[in-house]
Amino acid sequence: MSAAPARANGPVLANAPVLAIDIGGTKLAAALVEPDGRVAAHDRAPTPNGPGVDGEELWRALDALLGKLLADAGDPSLAGVGAGCGGPMTWPAAEVSPLNIPAWRGFPLRERLRARHPGLPVRIHNDAICVAVGEHWLGAGRGHGNVLGMVVSTGVGGGLILGGHLVNGASGNAGHIGHVVVEPDGPPCACGGRGCLEAIARGPGLVAWAQQQGWRPGGTDVTGVELAADARRGDPVAGSAMRRAGRALGIAIASATHLCDLEVAAIGGGLSQAGPLLFEPMEAAFRAHARMDFARRARIVPAALGQTAGLVGAAALVHAQDRYWSAG
Amino acid sequence: MSAAPARANGPVLANAPVLAIDIGGTKLAAALVEPDGRVAAHDRAPTPNGPGVDGEELWRALDALLGKLLADAGDPSLAGVGAGCGGPMTWPAAEVSPLNIPAWRGFPLRERLRARHPGLPVRIHNDAICVAVGEHWLGAGRGHGNVLGMVVSTGVGGGLILGGHLVNGASGNAGHIGHVVVEPDGPPCACGGRGCLEAIARGPGLVAWAQQQGWRPGGTDVTGVELAADARRGDPVAGSAMRRAGRALGIAIASATHLCDLEVAAIGGGLSQAGPLLFEPMEAAFRAHARMDFARRARIVPAALGQTAGLVGAAALVHAQDRYWSAG
Repeated sequence: MSAAPARANGPVLANAPVLAIDIGGTKLAAALVEPDGRVAAHDRAPTPNGPGVDGEELWRALDALLGKLLADAGDPSLAGVGAGCGGPMTWPAAEVSPLNIPAWRGFPLRERLRARHPGLPVRIHNDAICVAVGEHWLGAGRGHGNVLGMVVSTGVGGGLILGGHLVNGASGNAGHIGHVVVEPDGPPCACGGRGCLEAIARGPGLVAWAQQQGWRPGGTDVTGVELAADARRGDPVAGSAMRRAGRALGIAIASATHLCDLEVAAIGGGLSQAGPLLFEPMEAAFRAHARMDFARRARIVPAALGQTAGLVGAAALVHAQDRYWSAG
Repeated sequence: MSAAPARANGPVLANAPVLAIDIGGTKLAAALVEPDGRVAAHDRAPTPNGPGVDGEELWRALDALLGKLLADAGDPSLAGVGAGCGGPMTWPAAEVSPLNIPAWRGFPLRERLRARHPGLPVRIHNDAICVAVGEHWLGAGRGHGNVLGMVVSTGVGGGLILGGHLVNGASGNAGHIGHVVVEPDGPPCACGGRGCLEAIARGPGLVAWAQQQGWRPGGTDVTGVELAADARRGDPVAGSAMRRAGRALGIAIASATHLCDLEVAAIGGGLSQAGPLLFEPMEAAFRAHARMDFARRARIVPAALGQTAGLVGAAALVHAQDRYWSAG
């Protein structure tokens, strides 16, 4: 990275950082990520969200965050822009309609970022895919060719790396482990199906189930993270909820391992903070169902990168494009 | 293909045929497959199998079949040798241990074929993967980048093509759709797990289930093909068995579609001869569970190539190596 000031839309430099962006329902995050994956600068802002927020207001908040981050860093030359955003989206065109951000419906995020950074590669993918890419590039999946990265949180998402390359599928939607069916007659899922992994193991689903079973959390706006914390403190119903989620996760990972001949499943997201209370039943269900010789060699591990995984993965769409970007 | 006689171990010719081999528990098949996929010559022989057969006896039967096929064709120069064989096997080294051929346990099939055809590429894969490759190259999956090819027969196997390329996974075992879990508390599976698709939908499993329900077939050595025929003739229990298999297949294909963002699942194998009696419940279960927008675009279709799919796919490991062969 040059020490001299340079404009953000200057020439692409091979050793320049990527402007990485992570767009979530509660916060916007941005970072400058060096070619070796180091996060050189990082900033965040609340996501304008909820009733009355329009798409342009949200874009202005993002634009301001990016402007401040780049100015604080001395407006460095960039190698490109990478972003993760909640789905669904068209891909690779990235007209985004994140489920939890109603203000953006068909919002032309890639086009806007291209206009903001003319001449630079701008690459956008599903946020869970970016986490999986980050974990494969520099985290818990590093060095393995066949990895499922998962985010277990408000939803259950993921991304699939096979033969050392990110799998996109027909429309950029490969990796939807949350909609692998684990219980055909199970609870209805928001997707319209039934018995999907996500219907059982997503935080709000677990919270609802635990409350039906008599769990009484301290606060009012409870999430799976509080449930996981209560499970760690020994609450028996919270513990049962974690076992229920863990079993469903283990079954889905066994199915994915048999189908894709995986080496590693790396599990992140808020619920994974429950630690052994989630991982032990997950491992037990996985071992009960993943019985083919090749599948028994696979391992389930906690994600390694924490909160920055999505930013690091978004940067990898540019920095490690040979492995993680096959679109135009 | 040269009209002049040439030795089988002569120079590799780009327009020469591939010697394709399909090794099954009841028959050995071999063919000369032209670069455009046309089967120019074809022969078969019973597989020496059962108690007392040793591995060398089986090899000699295969060697004789290949020798006769090549001699009858005037010993053409070959582009290479491709073979499909039942799993498990080490891959790509192809020391094969087909479940239904006890005489071969760790048999060095690739090494033997290399010694028989020195200087030629020799490539071996799971027989269900070869069928999937054949269907992708020239059959029901042709022209689509993201395809699951399936064989529903004595077992349930498959192969996965994503981004236009065959997926091998960590050990050449990707495509094991038969061990995707469709009913976690379902019947035990031969793999040691429980509720796998194969445990429910394999021919012998369906026959056993139908007999428990009172089905009385005409013959004694009945298979899923007879059951499918009885279902077509209107036998209600045979029909129920097909619905049971169809539902399990549809659920597994929905899971695979969500995970891999498939465009097409192509279904072959003896049981698929049941036609609508199998495909209608399969389609119904698939539509009930594959609800994400991207997944609703996927289609389930019957395989197109019939009995020669495996031979055509084995040939494609050489003829279309850029798409179907990534190993050494």
